[in-house]
Amino acid sequence: MIPTKIALVLLLAVQWGHCSIWIIRPSPQPPQPDEVAKMARYIMRNSDWVSVATTSTQKAIQGYPFVSLKSVSDGTASNSTGVPYLYMTDMDVSGKDIEKDNRCTILASLAESEYCKQKNFDPQDPRCAKLIITGKMVKVDKDSSEYEFGQNALFSKHPSMKWWPKDHAFYVAKINIEQIEVLDFFGGIKNVSVEDYFNAYNARSGDVLFSKVDFIDLAA
Amino acid sequence: MIPTKIALVLLLAVQWGHCSIWIIRPSPQPPQPDEVAKMARYIMRNSDWVSVATTSTQKAIQGYPFVSLKSVSDGTASNSTGVPYLYMTDMDVSGKDIEKDNRCTILASLAESEYCKQKNFDPQDPRCAKLIITGKMVKVDKDSSEYEFGQNALFSKHPSMKWWPKDHAFYVAKINIEQIEVLDFFGGIKNVSVEDYFNAYNARSGDVLFSKVDFIDLAA
Repeated sequence: MIPTKIALVLLLAVQWGHCSIWIIRPSPQPPQPDEVAKMARYIMRNSDWVSVATTSTQKAIQGYPFVSLKSVSDGTASNSTGVPYLYMTDMDVSGKDIEKDNRCTILASLAESEYCKQKNFDPQDPRCAKLIITGKMVKVDKDSSEYEFGQNALFSKHPSMKWWPKDHAFYVAKINIEQIEVLDFFGGIKNVSVEDYFNAYNARSGDVLFSKVDFIDLAA
Repeated sequence: MIPTKIALVLLLAVQWGHCSIWIIRPSPQPPQPDEVAKMARYIMRNSDWVSVATTSTQKAIQGYPFVSLKSVSDGTASNSTGVPYLYMTDMDVSGKDIEKDNRCTILASLAESEYCKQKNFDPQDPRCAKLIITGKMVKVDKDSSEYEFGQNALFSKHPSMKWWPKDHAFYVAKINIEQIEVLDFFGGIKNVSVEDYFNAYNARSGDVLFSKVDFIDLAA
């Protein structure tokens, strides 16, 4: 049940095709530019997808930096972890790159949402904030509770993933983070320590919400 | 003067801050998935920004694939060339990477626009089309007519660039294209030859338009 007070600010829409309910929340504003670790968590939490840079194994461009697009989630609707979970397959070009060399960088940006347009910030304007995370992509152990959590994180934010082809052997992957950079204001890129990043979320303040859209699966 | 017929489908909004008029056109639908070269041109033409993968020169992540975000334009409002023009500076991390090794890949996707959400395509769904171009980034010769064209291409689509700090020494760069990949349907990534890509635009059919927003600078 949705409490009455919350229900007042929720827009409920039944999406019959997938038997799910969308709860569209008014999106909170991003943190201030001096709250850089919070900004990093905010961007990760509210991004639907990331660009994933890998080192190419394709014959024609071997060794070139490559980039693809993957949907992302850092947790279930009630639990933001900051860990970027991805749904990967060895069948696509990025998956093959990662098999050979799992060093990667991911980029998420408020340019994905309507925020920058509404503020009249050009996508390249530093105030149209970007989060850039570098590390190594690893498969989450399929028998671990983290696998179940990561899969729920992805499926709750990207419900169509549940119906993606079984023969593509998708697996839950995550980035073991080594470097975090944020560009959210003039004056150049800022570094956030991994510790500050993981400590930045204050569950009680509710300042880092789940995307703009939550899904409740009616079949679940 | 805007012809009356066109004026009927245009939404005019005066943006006083920058003394420009926005002309918001109804965006044309993307080409069909079997028109893959046209799809590549459509995505390039209608993308505001690209993710740019480079090989990192940053100390902590040297040699790692890196990714940043840059605004893009492939031509002025009346001239789509297919050439990705970027506004770069050696002062930022990607600019430094490119100085050392100019091999790069750029990614643009319909996920940037409202198209995929409206179609209920997850960002990672192949039907939420992606264009991935690999090549070498080069500075356009400042004394050439191409420099003026590239700068006009960028400034007309991203008018705030005109006011970006002069001391950042921004320059017009382009990608010399070596490989073009399109993911726009089930069945895996497709290659488009550079020749087909550059020949795909039929100016008379008007099927490749300028983004969703054109700007007319009142001060020009």
